[in-house]
Amino acid sequence: MLEQRCGRAVQLTAVSALELPADPEISIGDAVWFDDAVAMAREADADVVVELIGGSDGVAKAVCEAAIGAGRHVVTANKALIATHGTEIARAAEGAGVGLGYEAAVAGGIPIIKSLREGLPANRMTSVYGILNGTCNYILSAMRDSGREFEDVLAEAQSLGYAEADPGFDVDGIDAAHKLAILTSVAFGCELNFDDVYIEGIRHVSAQDIAFATELGYRIKLLGIARRTADGVEQRVHPCMVRQETPIAHVEGVYNAVVAEGDFVGTCVFEGRGAGAGPTASAVVADLVDIARGIRIPAFVVPAARLAPARTAPMDQHHGAYYVRLMVVDQPGVIADVSAVLRDEQVSMESMLQRGRAPSEPVPVVITTHETREASMTRALAKIGSLDSVVEPPRMIRIESLER
Amino acid sequence: MLEQRCGRAVQLTAVSALELPADPEISIGDAVWFDDAVAMAREADADVVVELIGGSDGVAKAVCEAAIGAGRHVVTANKALIATHGTEIARAAEGAGVGLGYEAAVAGGIPIIKSLREGLPANRMTSVYGILNGTCNYILSAMRDSGREFEDVLAEAQSLGYAEADPGFDVDGIDAAHKLAILTSVAFGCELNFDDVYIEGIRHVSAQDIAFATELGYRIKLLGIARRTADGVEQRVHPCMVRQETPIAHVEGVYNAVVAEGDFVGTCVFEGRGAGAGPTASAVVADLVDIARGIRIPAFVVPAARLAPARTAPMDQHHGAYYVRLMVVDQPGVIADVSAVLRDEQVSMESMLQRGRAPSEPVPVVITTHETREASMTRALAKIGSLDSVVEPPRMIRIESLER
Repeated sequence: MLEQRCGRAVQLTAVSALELPADPEISIGDAVWFDDAVAMAREADADVVVELIGGSDGVAKAVCEAAIGAGRHVVTANKALIATHGTEIARAAEGAGVGLGYEAAVAGGIPIIKSLREGLPANRMTSVYGILNGTCNYILSAMRDSGREFEDVLAEAQSLGYAEADPGFDVDGIDAAHKLAILTSVAFGCELNFDDVYIEGIRHVSAQDIAFATELGYRIKLLGIARRTADGVEQRVHPCMVRQETPIAHVEGVYNAVVAEGDFVGTCVFEGRGAGAGPTASAVVADLVDIARGIRIPAFVVPAARLAPARTAPMDQHHGAYYVRLMVVDQPGVIADVSAVLRDEQVSMESMLQRGRAPSEPVPVVITTHETREASMTRALAKIGSLDSVVEPPRMIRIESLER
Repeated sequence: MLEQRCGRAVQLTAVSALELPADPEISIGDAVWFDDAVAMAREADADVVVELIGGSDGVAKAVCEAAIGAGRHVVTANKALIATHGTEIARAAEGAGVGLGYEAAVAGGIPIIKSLREGLPANRMTSVYGILNGTCNYILSAMRDSGREFEDVLAEAQSLGYAEADPGFDVDGIDAAHKLAILTSVAFGCELNFDDVYIEGIRHVSAQDIAFATELGYRIKLLGIARRTADGVEQRVHPCMVRQETPIAHVEGVYNAVVAEGDFVGTCVFEGRGAGAGPTASAVVADLVDIARGIRIPAFVVPAARLAPARTAPMDQHHGAYYVRLMVVDQPGVIADVSAVLRDEQVSMESMLQRGRAPSEPVPVVITTHETREASMTRALAKIGSLDSVVEPPRMIRIESLER
């Protein structure tokens, strides 16, 4: 089937890994074994080198550089590498006249790179955003379904294999930020700029916040969002409250979804499994088929030399609505103090909710605001946090009003 | 922007239409005007001809044939043409060494042809299905929201411009069937076979059925479904009951959605506006960019000569669950008679619901079945319809159990 689709035969000629697979079911056939992956990339009898090692530097980067240096096409699933060195690698690949495929780096099997680059090139994109990390989405879905706390659900996810033993890359938002940086570059035709992505993970999301979100008609999702603004392109990864009616609110568990908004096409939504052997293989092989078919398209929509310099909007210029939960001593005057701070910072309240009464015990007060500047909100939260009657640091989750 | 993305300038050189646009805002600039579109396709100074006329035969077909005959690439938004003559046109285009783009023919701006053909070529697809007609989806959404009947909502849709004055093409399922035939060919690499698509529209869906669907946890959607079975590929367009939890149940109004299921990628969902000037332009220009970039991929995944012969599974071999609504005289023994017919045809009931009591008035009886053969169901419905106590023809809607 692949031979028909490629218009030619594709053959595995060489393999390198930390060690030969112990599983007798897995054979490398007639392929040549290399202990040294970089030597393989340089010396193997191959047109294309597929890099599935991972990591932004080290061996993975050396393998890609060696392959390009030897005039071979590169296919990689390595989001960290592309997010941090993508512009430079694309430039090298173009200089050498070879292709660079990285479909598997973002959103698993969803053909989102191809869709943005080749399916929607007629559009000036206004935004691209999505659920880019299945581990976080699984944890948030499970917290919502079960009412349990983050640590508890994380431990379960680890035992089920949905979260790594060291979960920081996922739950702290770094993995989603890598993917967002790549999507930004493809959608807006600008150089990669991972360093300026604003990143906030999901560790601070509590069962209480999820319950309040439901009550207010929202669901909490970790989103990666890139949006064109007058100050440049916003690039931010953080938990968001999204209205229950939006399609993305219904993307559950280990699924990923990417929403692209263009001036002609309007809103397009792409959804599928965000990780795993099958979806990754699907994306890697799609890149291989493209190369076998002789397709050469600049990795990030336009040639690397013509990419616009990245211009990432500063986070304190972000304009949006906010959910804030305070734990306050249940006594008269607290709301007046909080309201005064918000007024002084010109933050306009949309709603206030105080549930339960427990004299001299801490009770939650939930506030939602109209759209305001992040800088104003940050100042207001610092002042509110220092009020005597506010007994825990305020919890803030951004409310994202999505089109459609 | 397009020049950068194409790697070359793209210029409008000739235009033909029924008449020059009256709107003074619309100018054809330096382009040459042709009264005769076929002459334009043959004679204009052009590399690519874009056909936006519509219709499976007549001028549209002549334009595409003339363009290919003159060695020009063709981009078309014409689903009727591709669904009925796609194999033959693809063969002619390949013979002439020119490209054939038809992304705009299916699901508006959603890059579904590209995604199936170039984003998921690693997969042996098991099914591809979706909401392929925005007019029907709008009418069904509005019926559900308002509780009104089909004719009433159709009239409103016509006044809003969401339905044509002659709505048959949309509401009778033909437009969706054209798109399904195209998706089938791309997903399964087989020749087009529009003639064997089973087609049923939405005229017979009543407000009562929509209310019962909601009560049973379903929504009613007009789906186009292609699925690999032992008897060939099912190709069917008809109203379906889908579980409220499935993503496709939440695709409302004029939106389209396509779900593709592959052996490696699992389930991928693509959603966006299914029609309109902007989405159509987005898809047409994507095809133009591909051609300008020099990309030549067989129109239906593999070269036309290598497409498998279409093998469409007969509808009476379809295996599925059913919703049936009967209007019966409220008297003892009716359910026993109906049950006996179902037993004789070996159709197993899943649930039975009789609401309201009105002695000697017709009352609805709703039955859902376990999976059974369409042929058995057809025979059972004929017998049930002829029972004296059943006062209207039975209404049947297929229940579609979707993965995920």
